[in-house]
Amino acid sequence: MSSSFGRILKLSIFGESHSPAVGGVLEGLPAGSPIDLHKLRSFVLRRAPGAQAASTSRKETDEIEFLSGLLNGKTTGTPLSFIIRNTDIRRDDYSKTASVPRPGHADYTGTAKYFGCNDHSGGGHFSGRLTAPLCCAGGIALQQLDCENIRVNARIVRVGSVTDDSEFTEDVSGKAFPAVSDAAGSKMLEAIGQARAEGDSLGGIIECVMYGLPAGLGDPMFHGLENTISQAVFAIPAVKGVEFGDGFALSGLTGSRANDAFCANNGSISHLSNHAGGINGGISNDMPVVLRVAVKPTPSIALPQRSVDMESMADTILSISGRHDACIVPRAVPCVEAACALAILDAVLLRRSEVYGH
Amino acid sequence: MSSSFGRILKLSIFGESHSPAVGGVLEGLPAGSPIDLHKLRSFVLRRAPGAQAASTSRKETDEIEFLSGLLNGKTTGTPLSFIIRNTDIRRDDYSKTASVPRPGHADYTGTAKYFGCNDHSGGGHFSGRLTAPLCCAGGIALQQLDCENIRVNARIVRVGSVTDDSEFTEDVSGKAFPAVSDAAGSKMLEAIGQARAEGDSLGGIIECVMYGLPAGLGDPMFHGLENTISQAVFAIPAVKGVEFGDGFALSGLTGSRANDAFCANNGSISHLSNHAGGINGGISNDMPVVLRVAVKPTPSIALPQRSVDMESMADTILSISGRHDACIVPRAVPCVEAACALAILDAVLLRRSEVYGH
Amino acid sequence: MSSSFGRILKLSIFGESHSPAVGGVLEGLPAGSPIDLHKLRSFVLRRAPGAQAASTSRKETDEIEFLSGLLNGKTTGTPLSFIIRNTDIRRDDYSKTASVPRPGHADYTGTAKYFGCNDHSGGGHFSGRLTAPLCCAGGIALQQLDCENIRVNARIVRVGSVTDDSEFTEDVSGKAFPAVSDAAGSKMLEAIGQARAEGDSLGGIIECVMYGLPAGLGDPMFHGLENTISQAVFAIPAVKGVEFGDGFALSGLTGSRANDAFCANNGSISHLSNHAGGINGGISNDMPVVLRVAVKPTPSIALPQRSVDMESMADTILSISGRHDACIVPRAVPCVEAACALAILDAVLLRRSEVYGH
Amino acid sequence: MSSSFGRILKLSIFGESHSPAVGGVLEGLPAGSPIDLHKLRSFVLRRAPGAQAASTSRKETDEIEFLSGLLNGKTTGTPLSFIIRNTDIRRDDYSKTASVPRPGHADYTGTAKYFGCNDHSGGGHFSGRLTAPLCCAGGIALQQLDCENIRVNARIVRVGSVTDDSEFTEDVSGKAFPAVSDAAGSKMLEAIGQARAEGDSLGGIIECVMYGLPAGLGDPMFHGLENTISQAVFAIPAVKGVEFGDGFALSGLTGSRANDAFCANNGSISHLSNHAGGINGGISNDMPVVLRVAVKPTPSIALPQRSVDMESMADTILSISGRHDACIVPRAVPCVEAACALAILDAVLLRRSEVYGH
Repeated sequence: MSSSFGRILKLSIFGESHSPAVGGVLEGLPAGSPIDLHKLRSFVLRRAPGAQAASTSRKETDEIEFLSGLLNGKTTGTPLSFIIRNTDIRRDDYSKTASVPRPGHADYTGTAKYFGCNDHSGGGHFSGRLTAPLCCAGGIALQQLDCENIRVNARIVRVGSVTDDSEFTEDVSGKAFPAVSDAAGSKMLEAIGQARAEGDSLGGIIECVMYGLPAGLGDPMFHGLENTISQAVFAIPAVKGVEFGDGFALSGLTGSRANDAFCANNGSISHLSNHAGGINGGISNDMPVVLRVAVKPTPSIALPQRSVDMESMADTILSISGRHDACIVPRAVPCVEAACALAILDAVLLRRSEVYGH
Repeated sequence: MSSSFGRILKLSIFGESHSPAVGGVLEGLPAGSPIDLHKLRSFVLRRAPGAQAASTSRKETDEIEFLSGLLNGKTTGTPLSFIIRNTDIRRDDYSKTASVPRPGHADYTGTAKYFGCNDHSGGGHFSGRLTAPLCCAGGIALQQLDCENIRVNARIVRVGSVTDDSEFTEDVSGKAFPAVSDAAGSKMLEAIGQARAEGDSLGGIIECVMYGLPAGLGDPMFHGLENTISQAVFAIPAVKGVEFGDGFALSGLTGSRANDAFCANNGSISHLSNHAGGINGGISNDMPVVLRVAVKPTPSIALPQRSVDMESMADTILSISGRHDACIVPRAVPCVEAACALAILDAVLLRRSEVYGH
Repeated sequence: MSSSFGRILKLSIFGESHSPAVGGVLEGLPAGSPIDLHKLRSFVLRRAPGAQAASTSRKETDEIEFLSGLLNGKTTGTPLSFIIRNTDIRRDDYSKTASVPRPGHADYTGTAKYFGCNDHSGGGHFSGRLTAPLCCAGGIALQQLDCENIRVNARIVRVGSVTDDSEFTEDVSGKAFPAVSDAAGSKMLEAIGQARAEGDSLGGIIECVMYGLPAGLGDPMFHGLENTISQAVFAIPAVKGVEFGDGFALSGLTGSRANDAFCANNGSISHLSNHAGGINGGISNDMPVVLRVAVKPTPSIALPQRSVDMESMADTILSISGRHDACIVPRAVPCVEAACALAILDAVLLRRSEVYGH
Repeated sequence: MSSSFGRILKLSIFGESHSPAVGGVLEGLPAGSPIDLHKLRSFVLRRAPGAQAASTSRKETDEIEFLSGLLNGKTTGTPLSFIIRNTDIRRDDYSKTASVPRPGHADYTGTAKYFGCNDHSGGGHFSGRLTAPLCCAGGIALQQLDCENIRVNARIVRVGSVTDDSEFTEDVSGKAFPAVSDAAGSKMLEAIGQARAEGDSLGGIIECVMYGLPAGLGDPMFHGLENTISQAVFAIPAVKGVEFGDGFALSGLTGSRANDAFCANNGSISHLSNHAGGINGGISNDMPVVLRVAVKPTPSIALPQRSVDMESMADTILSISGRHDACIVPRAVPCVEAACALAILDAVLLRRSEVYGH
């Protein structure tokens, strides 16, 4: 069993929804890099419960405590570790459901995987709570990428049946609802409110664009950018699909439409389009890297659902009353940025050993 | 730079389109497992040029030579290595285009990555030719999974604008064209023929279903089945998207529609639907694992395309005349099975150390 | 930069001598394994300052706080994490020596490695303090091995010029001084006291024997038991050599003397000697695994030493007055056991996936 | 089961003594590096049977065939793969001993590890034959290090009871017998000849010194130079111990004798001695890296030895008559250089990503 990621930049994430703390260890950060803790806190808060309209009422201060690897605001180069205490623990909320797996959650698979020994409270290690250390590590990676003039921006392009077809021309990270079109954003919020009122939930689609990647990042075969970004974003609970560039739509195009032609541009070479989402053969091509991830509806819903009491093996009806988001898509936006940043920074650090001397 | 995959079952793939050979090393195969070479050869031939209607005319016998790890038809447990000679090498085909990157290919990114030192002929290490060792390794993994009663079947559900909405009720691996509906398959072939006649190409979508996985395979966070299957399938050139279960369509459903409810079933627990594609929290849940991958159109097309001569940095027009598939989707079908099999077998072997004693 | 170890059982160690805490993350522990916290604490205390006669006067309570992975005294199967607070921090002790590297320490190499950004206080990440999380993780591994009837015992066989040639017939872990011969132990303590009185320090040799390993643990080539045990024990600061079985003495024997012959033994096969230290070809052979590690003298000594002020680049004389062990060999004994236990448990867990079905 | 090594420079070794070929895959070599094949061949031949006086009479041409990753004498940056055919295969030599494990060999442990499915002929994957691909990969690494002005030289300091106490002032790689003192070398050869005449064998000690390593190579804890060099050299069959700097002798010194003091030296800092063998805290310190490895006597001897027929479980007497070295120490010298070079080049490549920007 492993919850770690990366080759030069290695992240190990630990914690359970209701264990004393969640946290992470980051190995491989360059020594002497400043970490702006205020900026990091702002980033992590974007995923915190309550930061987004209509999210769970669970209150977590999400105070990050650094235990090592940071001295006078700069990385020491040795393992950087941090923890976030779980302060608002209410194990009772889950006592009834210990033996009744919630549909759409990892309760059943977690029980199978760990032979019932895992901490089931709040989903344990499978909880969305684990995206807190993911965002903390990813927020640090984002700051490192910023020094390389690489920016990572995500936005919501769909919630339920509401889509935002606007071009992605602005950074929406400061907005209360991270959609480009405020009109579409309002409709999305409205749809979320309606779903909550109905005891139901919604999913959506997040688009992430990365600017400033030099050509040559990524490896062929199994460690291309598509491979490693996918490996990272599927760590976010509820993600069920990922596509790059025109993605699934490419299946309906002809080669003459799908290929990104080249033109000369003042002594260098430019692409005339970006259907490939900035990646060919797994490797960045100078164009922005573009991906979209599908987020399923929050599985925790108030509406009654069929389940089984695993102790008595009797059918039962489950109605989930705890503190839950009717749509986690807004809170997943910084998580997607974090996951992408971790994958890209790892590629950037690996790349440094390759360009040396060339 | 790495072209390797896996944690217990480790595959290292090597070779270039026109190097003496392509091949692979597989570490971690259990000792004493029979490998049916006839069956393996049949599987690998499903991806071979010419095996599928309307594929490239490049002729490769694709004879697999085992160099180690195999004794009297059984694995020895030590590294299994194999090579496939590149016999039909015609470097001249590529001499003109050495400095003119082909749109949609990895020529430009490969040059950036390797500072121009890579073998550009036929795409070098980025060539579809590298799916030969992928299929060989995956074919071996498929035989191992077969002993565990795990079956992996893929089929085409879309080529260009032609879709096959049939249920996936039969194994199509023996068919000349791997679609369930012969009518849809004929239309797909027709569309491919037309694209070729127009000097163009088509993409498509492949669906892969895996039956027989016990609950509990996969790890949380970064090594879930979704993460590792994605990492594997993006190694297939031209794959630009992957989704599990209802995938992107889940973004438009409500939780009450998307959740897979449970019911008691003769003392065990069953799912009433499979929107999640057999995976919750990264871990298999007893239901068939279902995924779809988006394959972009073959980038090599006869139609003229804009490119740049990187030596003179002058705009130029490229018309690709070599031996190419107008649609690689049919040949990609066994590649998807191979990639999935490698990811699943790795999870199965890891799982063995967990279930021991339980 | 990485401070992690293992393949199935993965340990990531973090912390600095004077950072808020040191700690570790253990991935891959089987779910449902009991951890006896009292026993663990006793083990960890064997390396704590003050537990051994004549050690540093730095006081650390070494209270282990588990943050995740442990529920009701049993492992959950998800990442187990723990921290040990650094309570007795006196940064002033090191302020003077910030720019003057201490001979024999990693001050100079740490500065070179991390471009001066590392935390130099007390050696930072290179401090012997990091053996606290190593022992905690190793103590957990020892309890797991105990369930497999594998015992790991270490003892001192040399301190300075005093040797203990006794056979290793008893577990000395409960003794105040971990030597088999009390007479030799007394002389060793005396030698240590004398070295301290002279402002000097001593090194020594630790022998570790592991009983109960089944034949077949370890991999050929780079992941044999010798390879991985070495990788683990060299993580203990001051270890400068390792040998297995008769080790360096084998270089002076003939093959007829060095080979361990076999004999039939009630239907099974036995070895008639154990010159190989229980390992052939990297793999355990049923006999006890025996190794010895060389520990150099504590580099911190009161005697004046030549060094250089790296700011002024002027020669200077350094006399180290802080809290230091005159001989860390006694405290290194549980560290060697811990390191060996981690390597062996990793091999045991890997082995489980191999033996499955055989 | 794994036979691979390294983190950026990854080597996977495959093959068995009597399989069609042995070989390796090297990932992570920088693109565009020239490989001098003539020089490589000379290096590999230093370990070949017959190259050294008094070695086995097995004749192998050891012709290296590169399959990928090499174009016009330079690395392409993609996986470099090579094979060496096993031409002089005589399976009959081993038919009798299939069920009778040879003392000191991995026959018994290999059978245990692989449940009898492994290729036992000539030791299979445990054969010294596997040092051919090790030397090939290491020889390539040595050439890369040469470009960094890092030199790796090994020599024999002991064979049986004959020692060579000369200072290591010259490169002995071109000598017929790789000892500094020709007088000592003659005595060693004589001792080997006598051991062979007696049907016996000898072991020895090899010293390896590496010059030109910049300070800062290696990681703390588990991936220091001592950890990784050890991991590599224990891959050489018959190695049973490794020590750095004064190694085991440090256990008898005081700190004031063992510490390497510093002095200012024209604006930089120098060490006044090298008891630490160029490594502190796992990290290179500018001084030459010095290590010694203990090589046990060749286990194959003509003298009768006790063993057991594992089919009948009856005691038996084994006299090994095949083609064997009476002392493999001379042939192990380039192997030690190769193993060290692989570990060091991996550290050098990792280091490049750290120094970038500093």
